Amino acid sequence: MATKSINTVWHKSGITRGDREKLHKHKSVVLWFTGLSGSGKSTLAHAIEERLYKNGISTYVLDGDNVRHGLCSDLSFTDSDRVENIRRIGELAKLLTDAGIITLTAFISPFKVDRDEARKRMLHGDFLEIYCQCPIEICEQRDVKGLYKKARAGEIPFFTGIDSPYEAPVGPELVINTCDISLEDSVQEVLNLLMRHGVILE
Amino acid sequence: MATKSINTVWHKSGITRGDREKLHKHKSVVLWFTGLSGSGKSTLAHAIEERLYKNGISTYVLDGDNVRHGLCSDLSFTDSDRVENIRRIGELAKLLTDAGIITLTAFISPFKVDRDEARKRMLHGDFLEIYCQCPIEICEQRDVKGLYKKARAGEIPFFTGIDSPYEAPVGPELVINTCDISLEDSVQEVLNLLMRHGVILE
Repeated sequence: MATKSINTVWHKSGITRGDREKLHKHKSVVLWFTGLSGSGKSTLAHAIEERLYKNGISTYVLDGDNVRHGLCSDLSFTDSDRVENIRRIGELAKLLTDAGIITLTAFISPFKVDRDEARKRMLHGDFLEIYCQCPIEICEQRDVKGLYKKARAGEIPFFTGIDSPYEAPVGPELVINTCDISLEDSVQEVLNLLMRHGVILE
Repeated sequence: MATKSINTVWHKSGITRGDREKLHKHKSVVLWFTGLSGSGKSTLAHAIEERLYKNGISTYVLDGDNVRHGLCSDLSFTDSDRVENIRRIGELAKLLTDAGIITLTAFISPFKVDRDEARKRMLHGDFLEIYCQCPIEICEQRDVKGLYKKARAGEIPFFTGIDSPYEAPVGPELVINTCDISLEDSVQEVLNLLMRHGVILE
C-alpha cells in the first residue's frame, strides 16, 4: 500500500522505548499467535497474560474478537479485508511494543505473506510467531463458538479452513500442539520462549 | 460506519484495565490535544510525557506525524480520510487506555463531530480534550515545518486553516493559549488538569 502522507515528519519523543522498558522493568515484544479458529489462541494468550501479570509485567492482548469491534469494525472477512485487518494489527502491535508493553495478538492471521509483513515492520527479535497447531477436525468438533457449524451451513462466507485457506507458518519461533498438551503446559512453553529470548528472567 | 463483524464475540480477559492501572500505580486517561498545525500540540504532548515519565508514569504519545506513517499510511488528507484517520486514532487511544497507559494524542483533528465521536467511544471522564489555541497568523508566521508556505503555494491540498476548515472545541476540558504562555506553564496547566481529575496526585 503506497504511503500518501508525504508531508509528514516522524516526531521523535524525548522518552524512548528503552526508557519505557526501564520503567516497566522488562523488555517489550510481540507474541503473535496464529492458527485455526478454535485452536486455542485467545485462551492461551489470556492465560499467559494472567501469568505475566502476577510477575508485574505489563501486557495487552489484541484479540480478533475485540479489535474487530473497534479499530477494524469497517472490515469484513474477505481476503482483501483480512489483509488490511492484519496490516492494522501489525501496526498496532508495533506501537504497543514501542510503548513498552508485551503484546499478545490472537488472530487466525491465515496468510503467510501478511504475517511476514507484520514481522518485517518490527525490529529483529521483536516478533515471536507462535503456531497453535490443531487439526481442523478437532477444532470443528469443539466448535466453541458454533462458528464451524454456521460456516458449513453457508451462513459465514470466507471461513478459514472451510472456504478460505490457512497457510501454516514456515519456521515460527514456537509450535504448540494445543490439542495434545494442557493449557498449563502450553503457557510454560511460551514462558520458556520468552526466557530464551531474554524478555523475562523468571 | 456499519459494523460488518457480526460473527465475533468480545473476549474478556482475566486481567482488567483496573488490574493494569494497579500495576502501573496510576489511572489511565486520554489527553486529546487539538489545534491548528503549528499550535504546539506535539511539542506540548512530548514535554508532558517527559514530565510524567520522571514521576514513574506510563505514557504514550500518538502523533499525527508518526501514526500517519504506520496505521494510517493508507489515508490521505481529504475530508473523508481525515474522518477515518481520527476514528482509528480514537480506537487506538481507547485500547491504550485499556492497557493502563496515559495516552496523549496530538492531531489537528479539525472536525468537532469526529472528536465528539472519539469522546463517545470512551468511558465518561476518560477523554480530556485540550485545545491548543493560537491564531493562524502566528502559526503561519512560525511555520516550523514549512507546511503553510507549501499550502499557500498550492502544494498541499486540504490544509487546515487554508482550504479546509478548523472547528474549535465547544467546552473542552482545557484551553491553552500556546502562543501567549510558555511551554513550562502549559505543561503545568495540563498537570493541574490531571490532578483535578484525580489521575495523578503530585
